[in-house]
Amino acid sequence: MKKHNFYAGPAILPKDVMRQASKAAINFNNSGLSILEISHRSADFAAVMEEAESLTRELLGVSDDYAVLFLTGGASSQFYMSAMNLLATDGKACYVDTGAWSTKAIKEAKAFGEIEIIASSKDKNYTYIPKRYKVPTDAAYLHLTSNNTISGTQHNWWPDTDVPFVCDMSSDIFSRPLDVNRFGMIYAGAQKNLGPAGVTLVIIRKDMLGKVNREIPTMLDYKTHIAKGSAFNTPPAFPIYVSMLTMRWIKAKGGVAEMAKKNKSKGGLLYREIDSNPLFVGTAAKKDRSLMNVTFLLNKPELEKEFLDMCTEAGCVGIKGHRSVGGFRASIYNAMPRGSVKVLTEVMQALAAKHG
Amino acid sequence: MKKHNFYAGPAILPKDVMRQASKAAINFNNSGLSILEISHRSADFAAVMEEAESLTRELLGVSDDYAVLFLTGGASSQFYMSAMNLLATDGKACYVDTGAWSTKAIKEAKAFGEIEIIASSKDKNYTYIPKRYKVPTDAAYLHLTSNNTISGTQHNWWPDTDVPFVCDMSSDIFSRPLDVNRFGMIYAGAQKNLGPAGVTLVIIRKDMLGKVNREIPTMLDYKTHIAKGSAFNTPPAFPIYVSMLTMRWIKAKGGVAEMAKKNKSKGGLLYREIDSNPLFVGTAAKKDRSLMNVTFLLNKPELEKEFLDMCTEAGCVGIKGHRSVGGFRASIYNAMPRGSVKVLTEVMQALAAKHG
Repeated sequence: MKKHNFYAGPAILPKDVMRQASKAAINFNNSGLSILEISHRSADFAAVMEEAESLTRELLGVSDDYAVLFLTGGASSQFYMSAMNLLATDGKACYVDTGAWSTKAIKEAKAFGEIEIIASSKDKNYTYIPKRYKVPTDAAYLHLTSNNTISGTQHNWWPDTDVPFVCDMSSDIFSRPLDVNRFGMIYAGAQKNLGPAGVTLVIIRKDMLGKVNREIPTMLDYKTHIAKGSAFNTPPAFPIYVSMLTMRWIKAKGGVAEMAKKNKSKGGLLYREIDSNPLFVGTAAKKDRSLMNVTFLLNKPELEKEFLDMCTEAGCVGIKGHRSVGGFRASIYNAMPRGSVKVLTEVMQALAAKHG
Repeated sequence: MKKHNFYAGPAILPKDVMRQASKAAINFNNSGLSILEISHRSADFAAVMEEAESLTRELLGVSDDYAVLFLTGGASSQFYMSAMNLLATDGKACYVDTGAWSTKAIKEAKAFGEIEIIASSKDKNYTYIPKRYKVPTDAAYLHLTSNNTISGTQHNWWPDTDVPFVCDMSSDIFSRPLDVNRFGMIYAGAQKNLGPAGVTLVIIRKDMLGKVNREIPTMLDYKTHIAKGSAFNTPPAFPIYVSMLTMRWIKAKGGVAEMAKKNKSKGGLLYREIDSNPLFVGTAAKKDRSLMNVTFLLNKPELEKEFLDMCTEAGCVGIKGHRSVGGFRASIYNAMPRGSVKVLTEVMQALAAKHG
């Protein structure tokens, strides 16, 4: 049976990418060796690293003022690394609290300097993106979470300030065009829109660095990885390779502008169903709805098991909401075909026909 | 042409493991989904994590006094994490300096407490393992590097002390039986004897923890990962999966005792050639020769290019020594067939027949 993969992460990747990754696990570049067993210093793998960086620069429009790094440890490691590298002990950073991941970022940053939470949507269980807040001009940076995987909200605008943004884009990077020059740093765990789990993309404006004087372990210092082209130690070779393949796929499909167009179409299809179906209700404020993670509830919670069973029967996997909020969540990243979203809306319609 | 993979790391993996990994990248467990795109919280992947842990325990004889963790960041991250978690600010740890990796471990640990280098083989360019040193009884731990990938030396004994060992086993874990109870902590980047790059195995005796009171970022605290079974955040799923497959392979082949037997046979074959061939000389002290990384030189350096060309012609890849020491290095980890070592010795013999 054909599966429709709605997992929030690790998440759906393009079929072509998985086929190429599978092939390279046996014989990479016709070398007679697997991508899993070649030196990260071999010419073949050095070319992968270079292409991963140049595709990131090309797809997102990243200038030479920025370094592009492929690290490990997930966004969860960037929560403390960003503050450790960018926030002086007597400095201040501002954070907008838009959900569980922001909260974790705030918690980890507090060890390194003054953290001011200048806006939060905690009052309504993070179902919206705070707006109309003032950003103190003396802040080293403003931390944002562009897309909130759990609550299904997404920034579709950016605050008007000269303070550089440090932004967790784990779940919507490469989903739409971006003016990178407004950001001091962007970071993203790969396992939603980019590749398999195990690699973390960091894009950092080089002049953000060198402003703190605490002692930083070599591996936690962005300058180490910039100097060594992400190969100070052995990088997570296969996850980087698969991410590079995904970027090739994005480019071949027309780049991030084309991704944005398709994501709008897919999101529109699912949100229209939620809004018109008498059994379902969306949980995020309409203005702030995410095009990556669509969160919704059943009006009649007693139908939950039946709905999930029908989803399973239709091949729809990963629809259950995050364990911390319940309900449902359909993650519809770049690689999700519109046809799979259609299948889900048909299941919703079938449930309504039975119980609506 | 058949390739013989002598890379030091990322390094050769069993053919069967690569075939299974390749298959799972398309369809994992007949789920219709790729291992690259399934949730780390799915039942199928939770089973992988459990099996990876239980195989580690079974193969190495790890008791419940120890936690088994699958982390990221490589051994290079363990250099500072071990000291950060185990060494109190007013405490002392002892280190034996046996090469480039020990030196890095020492450098990173110095930020966290007093570091005493109680023995070093730097005087002879790390070509031997220091012996007959005293371990101060007040040390929190004694740090060792069991196998030195660059210089080709290996510990084949352990110091007689009650001080717990913290040991970097990146390049020889699972190559031989081990009395884990003599170790307070063992860590290993996977990409030599265990799996692809991107996952780091940490085995830690739980009572080593909780003795420091510095503030540790959540992701750098071993207790975090113990409490969450290595899934506090998204673990590097595919590298863990491939490592688990490799452990299954080790078990099917008879376990680490059988690995040790085969490694002795392969190492013996290559060292006998080095010792009997008039053109070659081994670089490591005979007593301390590594069965994983065999380092050697040509007596007539002018033949280097010819030898490397002959290796390439015979399908032998990755024979060039580490860029910091030159010469040659043949890495012959668990997955290296004896037949491939034979091919290399035949190339050495052919060179001697021409020029000896």
